[in-house]
Amino acid sequence: MCGPLTEEKVFKDPVHKYIYVQDRTIWDLINTMEFQRLRRIRQLGTTYLTFHGAEHSRFSHSLGVYEITRKIISQFERNGYPDWPQEERLLSLCAALLHDVGHGPFSHSMEEVFHTHHEQWTCRILQGDTEINAVLRQVSPDFPDKVAAVIKKKYPKPIVVSLISSQMDADRMDYLLRDAYFTGVNYGTFDLERILRVLRPFKGQIVVKESGMHAVEHYLMSRYQMYWQIYFHPVTRSSEIILRQVFRRAKELYESGYSFYYMPLPLKSLLEQKMTLQHYMKLDESLLQTAFQEWSNEGDELLGDLCRRFLHRRLYKYITMDNPDEELLGEVSRAFQSIGLHPDYHMEIDYPFDLPYDVYRPDLKIGEKREKAPILLLDHKESVSEISLKSDIVRSITGLHQGQYHLYYPEEPLISNKNILSKKMKELFHLN
Amino acid sequence: MCGPLTEEKVFKDPVHKYIYVQDRTIWDLINTMEFQRLRRIRQLGTTYLTFHGAEHSRFSHSLGVYEITRKIISQFERNGYPDWPQEERLLSLCAALLHDVGHGPFSHSMEEVFHTHHEQWTCRILQGDTEINAVLRQVSPDFPDKVAAVIKKKYPKPIVVSLISSQMDADRMDYLLRDAYFTGVNYGTFDLERILRVLRPFKGQIVVKESGMHAVEHYLMSRYQMYWQIYFHPVTRSSEIILRQVFRRAKELYESGYSFYYMPLPLKSLLEQKMTLQHYMKLDESLLQTAFQEWSNEGDELLGDLCRRFLHRRLYKYITMDNPDEELLGEVSRAFQSIGLHPDYHMEIDYPFDLPYDVYRPDLKIGEKREKAPILLLDHKESVSEISLKSDIVRSITGLHQGQYHLYYPEEPLISNKNILSKKMKELFHLN
Amino acid sequence: MCGPLTEEKVFKDPVHKYIYVQDRTIWDLINTMEFQRLRRIRQLGTTYLTFHGAEHSRFSHSLGVYEITRKIISQFERNGYPDWPQEERLLSLCAALLHDVGHGPFSHSMEEVFHTHHEQWTCRILQGDTEINAVLRQVSPDFPDKVAAVIKKKYPKPIVVSLISSQMDADRMDYLLRDAYFTGVNYGTFDLERILRVLRPFKGQIVVKESGMHAVEHYLMSRYQMYWQIYFHPVTRSSEIILRQVFRRAKELYESGYSFYYMPLPLKSLLEQKMTLQHYMKLDESLLQTAFQEWSNEGDELLGDLCRRFLHRRLYKYITMDNPDEELLGEVSRAFQSIGLHPDYHMEIDYPFDLPYDVYRPDLKIGEKREKAPILLLDHKESVSEISLKSDIVRSITGLHQGQYHLYYPEEPLISNKNILSKKMKELFHLN
Amino acid sequence: MCGPLTEEKVFKDPVHKYIYVQDRTIWDLINTMEFQRLRRIRQLGTTYLTFHGAEHSRFSHSLGVYEITRKIISQFERNGYPDWPQEERLLSLCAALLHDVGHGPFSHSMEEVFHTHHEQWTCRILQGDTEINAVLRQVSPDFPDKVAAVIKKKYPKPIVVSLISSQMDADRMDYLLRDAYFTGVNYGTFDLERILRVLRPFKGQIVVKESGMHAVEHYLMSRYQMYWQIYFHPVTRSSEIILRQVFRRAKELYESGYSFYYMPLPLKSLLEQKMTLQHYMKLDESLLQTAFQEWSNEGDELLGDLCRRFLHRRLYKYITMDNPDEELLGEVSRAFQSIGLHPDYHMEIDYPFDLPYDVYRPDLKIGEKREKAPILLLDHKESVSEISLKSDIVRSITGLHQGQYHLYYPEEPLISNKNILSKKMKELFHLN
Repeated sequence: MCGPLTEEKVFKDPVHKYIYVQDRTIWDLINTMEFQRLRRIRQLGTTYLTFHGAEHSRFSHSLGVYEITRKIISQFERNGYPDWPQEERLLSLCAALLHDVGHGPFSHSMEEVFHTHHEQWTCRILQGDTEINAVLRQVSPDFPDKVAAVIKKKYPKPIVVSLISSQMDADRMDYLLRDAYFTGVNYGTFDLERILRVLRPFKGQIVVKESGMHAVEHYLMSRYQMYWQIYFHPVTRSSEIILRQVFRRAKELYESGYSFYYMPLPLKSLLEQKMTLQHYMKLDESLLQTAFQEWSNEGDELLGDLCRRFLHRRLYKYITMDNPDEELLGEVSRAFQSIGLHPDYHMEIDYPFDLPYDVYRPDLKIGEKREKAPILLLDHKESVSEISLKSDIVRSITGLHQGQYHLYYPEEPLISNKNILSKKMKELFHLN
Repeated sequence: MCGPLTEEKVFKDPVHKYIYVQDRTIWDLINTMEFQRLRRIRQLGTTYLTFHGAEHSRFSHSLGVYEITRKIISQFERNGYPDWPQEERLLSLCAALLHDVGHGPFSHSMEEVFHTHHEQWTCRILQGDTEINAVLRQVSPDFPDKVAAVIKKKYPKPIVVSLISSQMDADRMDYLLRDAYFTGVNYGTFDLERILRVLRPFKGQIVVKESGMHAVEHYLMSRYQMYWQIYFHPVTRSSEIILRQVFRRAKELYESGYSFYYMPLPLKSLLEQKMTLQHYMKLDESLLQTAFQEWSNEGDELLGDLCRRFLHRRLYKYITMDNPDEELLGEVSRAFQSIGLHPDYHMEIDYPFDLPYDVYRPDLKIGEKREKAPILLLDHKESVSEISLKSDIVRSITGLHQGQYHLYYPEEPLISNKNILSKKMKELFHLN
Repeated sequence: MCGPLTEEKVFKDPVHKYIYVQDRTIWDLINTMEFQRLRRIRQLGTTYLTFHGAEHSRFSHSLGVYEITRKIISQFERNGYPDWPQEERLLSLCAALLHDVGHGPFSHSMEEVFHTHHEQWTCRILQGDTEINAVLRQVSPDFPDKVAAVIKKKYPKPIVVSLISSQMDADRMDYLLRDAYFTGVNYGTFDLERILRVLRPFKGQIVVKESGMHAVEHYLMSRYQMYWQIYFHPVTRSSEIILRQVFRRAKELYESGYSFYYMPLPLKSLLEQKMTLQHYMKLDESLLQTAFQEWSNEGDELLGDLCRRFLHRRLYKYITMDNPDEELLGEVSRAFQSIGLHPDYHMEIDYPFDLPYDVYRPDLKIGEKREKAPILLLDHKESVSEISLKSDIVRSITGLHQGQYHLYYPEEPLISNKNILSKKMKELFHLN
Repeated sequence: MCGPLTEEKVFKDPVHKYIYVQDRTIWDLINTMEFQRLRRIRQLGTTYLTFHGAEHSRFSHSLGVYEITRKIISQFERNGYPDWPQEERLLSLCAALLHDVGHGPFSHSMEEVFHTHHEQWTCRILQGDTEINAVLRQVSPDFPDKVAAVIKKKYPKPIVVSLISSQMDADRMDYLLRDAYFTGVNYGTFDLERILRVLRPFKGQIVVKESGMHAVEHYLMSRYQMYWQIYFHPVTRSSEIILRQVFRRAKELYESGYSFYYMPLPLKSLLEQKMTLQHYMKLDESLLQTAFQEWSNEGDELLGDLCRRFLHRRLYKYITMDNPDEELLGEVSRAFQSIGLHPDYHMEIDYPFDLPYDVYRPDLKIGEKREKAPILLLDHKESVSEISLKSDIVRSITGLHQGQYHLYYPEEPLISNKNILSKKMKELFHLN
């Protein structure tokens, strides 16, 4: 059952107004249980604890990435550009729709503690015994592998890869617009329609007509703003830290033979690092929140406290540090111990720049792997240049980082033990 | 700890841009575990299965109702209207913030099957042993009861009640705007700023300056559109029917002594109709979805099927009927039985007009309870009239209903048993 | 020079984001002097004196009507509907772009006083010795006549006419959205994208798929709101009355042989009712405002006063009357004369319902000319019905009118002569 | 007649939703003929020839600057900040409303040719025999002079000046938002509400709470984008060049004793550089466009051609030059002469960076006049720093300029004389 639908279907979408489905394969993929599962995983993890509107799911983002890809390809086809390989349309659309299908709940935190990789899970879902695999095989027996190759950036035609994975791909364009819409900030709203108009397939790459340079600058500035005001927001970082502590503590307890009152199978598999595909499909935010709810009353007080903190949004506070030296941190650690806190769980240094994000990084140091294709401008003489060579503003913000060190900690025990702490500690933590 | 905050706090909100908190009591209420729990309950229940953007929670709606109420009162205070009882400000704000705090997950469906009432639960939370109760008692010992009285519409000053419960209250104004924003439709976007400007406290009621009549008409038309295009959408109704069937089947099984593999305590209390406040606080959407996930593999095939239908969005289809007669329904019932379906679970007639909604209903039949204060216009001679006496458009849409009967059923068994069915049944269910 | 452009051109547009030009003929038409002239004529006449944002020109509206028509046709072509006559594409686009090209400055007021008709001027421009005619003739010698036939609603294929002239045509859809955007109200914002998706060519007409009925209802409600809140706003009516008085007085003076200090040729032609095409092309708002500026100092005090009122926005006030009887108006007239006012110029009864607008009027009395094709719904059995037969809300608002009589007058002389007026007059005009 | 209005008045505004007037003085100022005249002067001069939506007037911008100032002051008052001099409220509002009242039509071009200065005219209007002066004198006899002092940046309290004249004043904030709205681009939409919230009066200056730094960065980036994509758009520059040529040619002809068929008095005064206040008040865009219309048929072919080019939008084309050397320009000049063109009128080098704009320039060279107060951040220790010391992004874009040289010229004569031109010239002007 491939081919076009007898009648175009639409989804109402707040970001793109409508999402248009014209292929039976796309329609069937959306209706699989693995794709529907994305409704139970929020796009921005714990960000809803900072921006309460950010409750949107990976389901809606995945539809959005598909829709932007569909629009790009449709523009290429309408203009009949010879450098666009028309036979790759359905493959590109499927890869766009499914690129995030392997995400678990609160991926960033979970992946850090359990060393899972959502991209690997995406491929296992595409290639394993799943409804998605069944739909893809109806196109051709090797179609699941081709979609996986695009997602692993190993498909032989880089133009297909770059649609969903480059410095200005459909993934980033959708999430900037969508996260801006749902948080309610207006930093992320660049001119998508104009960018779509100036993209061109050119010698195996996607390039931007030079006349669209300002629109690309605007997109990069939006990205810069979104990183610093949404994605790296210190309150969101705090909730991620709590979440990681919950995972770490549960793992520690489990490995030490602690007997949990509540331990559903998918979580057990996770803690034993023997996750099966079937269990992974059941590991959604509902399951985690139910577990946290139950663990709130666990015998282990530390785990219980962390779970309650997460559920009731009693987050760690933070202080800003220009340059945290070992000596000072040692002092803090000893002070914390003196009032009964665990430095391993109750203090954490965070430096958002450590994350693999940057506004734009066209040049890489020797030996570094180039992750994402750079943004290329095409001038009227058909010559191609990397954008930071042409744009002063891009050059000036490339490589910029304004990260600050934050020290996160629970405030309540410091307040109740204020009189035990030294003057220096009291000043450091603003305790008057 | 009452009184003003040392510094105003804000929440970024996509609908109102910012939500301003100026009172310590409001700030503390938001930070209680009972209020934070609203983050785990969606505002529109199952609507996200029809409009994927509708994933917003009752948390954000509750903040929105608070903010609109704050704006109305602030306008009254700025203009110094003598008919506004200034001493009721904090009470009004608390009632606005907390009016929905007793909602459980998927309230509409759950209340129908289990005969719970979210308003009663709101009062139990306000008046029971809760963090919210503790915050409210800091204002005064009888403050929790006063907030409860407002929510039960029994507070002696009707002007306070009407802020959150009338034909044009802060509750409705927020949900129309918010649901429109998150679904992505533009039907619900009336001119809130103008309506806020023309409200006046007048002799114990809130009235509208006559010059604002057109803005009120626009609000009522928005409401009309939202009901028919969002709230009564047949696909949403289908998902609610599935949900009710899950609840009904679980209840039936439980009452017949069936032993569930997974039965968390809050659900057990629900099924036994012996719900405690403590269990109710744990009954959120996560718990239900985790239960549905587990029940997908229950021994009872009917329960398993219904749960999988809900989780993977395999909803019932529907046909439209002008006037369903008993005879035809009997025939359908027998046909369903002949192919192994349970009429009790596999066919359901739905008529949305049965719901207690209407666009606007100023006049009530004798004996009927007046639920919501009507919209009153104040002319320049200080004379007050009910709006439908002045507005042709309101009069013409008052009492309008365009409901149709829908018969919901699972399509798959009908397709696979097509050859057993009569020609009449095949035509009725569009099976060719 | 016909055929497609080598590269699509775009105009940035606040309402449609971009306006796309793909045909050389369209590009050349936009660049004619007659079309550029529309930049000097405001879309909403004097409405900018009430809503200061409403300064947009007929140029931008004409582009908008073209763009909506282009989108409708492009949808028809993409779906390959056999009932759409593909050979009529360019004709339809030209008619859409040019349908308003014959508008003069402040058309409504000017046409009332001087009995000109913008539609006739449109045809004279299309068929006369103009740049537009030259561009159209490059398509074919009879192309100007064909465009004129569409605009006069006499083209043999009614489907082409209905694109720009029916109860839901590209003209109305653009002006509702555009006028809402520039005035800043949100009454006019219906879901254009959805309506475009549900339009179908069907047996020589354009019909609406029944599933789009609610979107059409929303469009009609928007129209209702825009009429009463923008187009019939009493302050706008007042400025149109002043303008008509200026024209009437100038005509009266000219016919009585009065010698004007400033009388540019296009105005002279207008007053002599011997307008040539060349003069009409110079008759724009700039010329009128320059004349009003000069006439502010004319010897005739009445003309000077009216011109200054218009330029400096010293409009007439109004009182509302339920049912103005002759006797009362006679009394007012005598009172006005007693304080030196001219009843012919200083009092005017206005009843907006007299204008040829209504929300929706599908049925006409016998003998009445059907001006605009009604809105037709197409159900899944391919049967067509007029919308008010299916939609309760449309039926209920059809034929609604809520017009009130307004009596307009200059307030200043009444205030300064207050003590001469009777008690009844003082009460009528709210003079205390 | 000073003091508060009995009832707040509002203007519907697309940018700020509503503009609130609470003082009789403000209301009366808006109703003066000098302020109403701003309706006949476009905010963005000739930009409507590039972005057709940009037809908004200085009237609406002036109301917007007033509204932002009102909001800032109202926030200061609501919070009771002691550093805000409350007695300066009305003065600040009047200065905000009136700061642009001296603008003439197409100010930039006109001021360049005729050396007028709109700021001087603003003061003449405030202090001369005008309706505005009469309204201001009702506040106090020296009030007109105080308003003028604020506008001339000489008022002794710099905090009042900085509201309407600093690197982030109400003027700039309104025009960025308004120009973005009316052109339809979204580059200019920063978070006004947030910026207003973080402004603080502090020791005679207005500073920004450090927590608002990102919002200020966003504002500066918006400004950067607006300059390069709207204000310096090469097509707009071309229309300004044509306009300047019209003025220059008219001046040249007038000074050489040429007898104009049409020469209204205000234009005569302008050409004789003996402008009176009364004539200046009549010099609006209508008058200029009427003159251009008449001059289109003047005996001087050059003037006629320039006027027709402006009215019918037959603008000069341009080529981009990295670094125009004298030799090349000399060659071009000779080539132009050889085909009958006037180098003085038919070729013009433009380098937008020459204009007195920059994204942000906190430091000035010695001897340079500091025009605009820099943006200052206030940290929680009450220490103040200039923003580029704290913000990497501001530092990196400060002083950036990406201007290119453009050579403007009429294309038609080059095309028709192509065979006379050298190969080099043909290549330079892309003539194939």
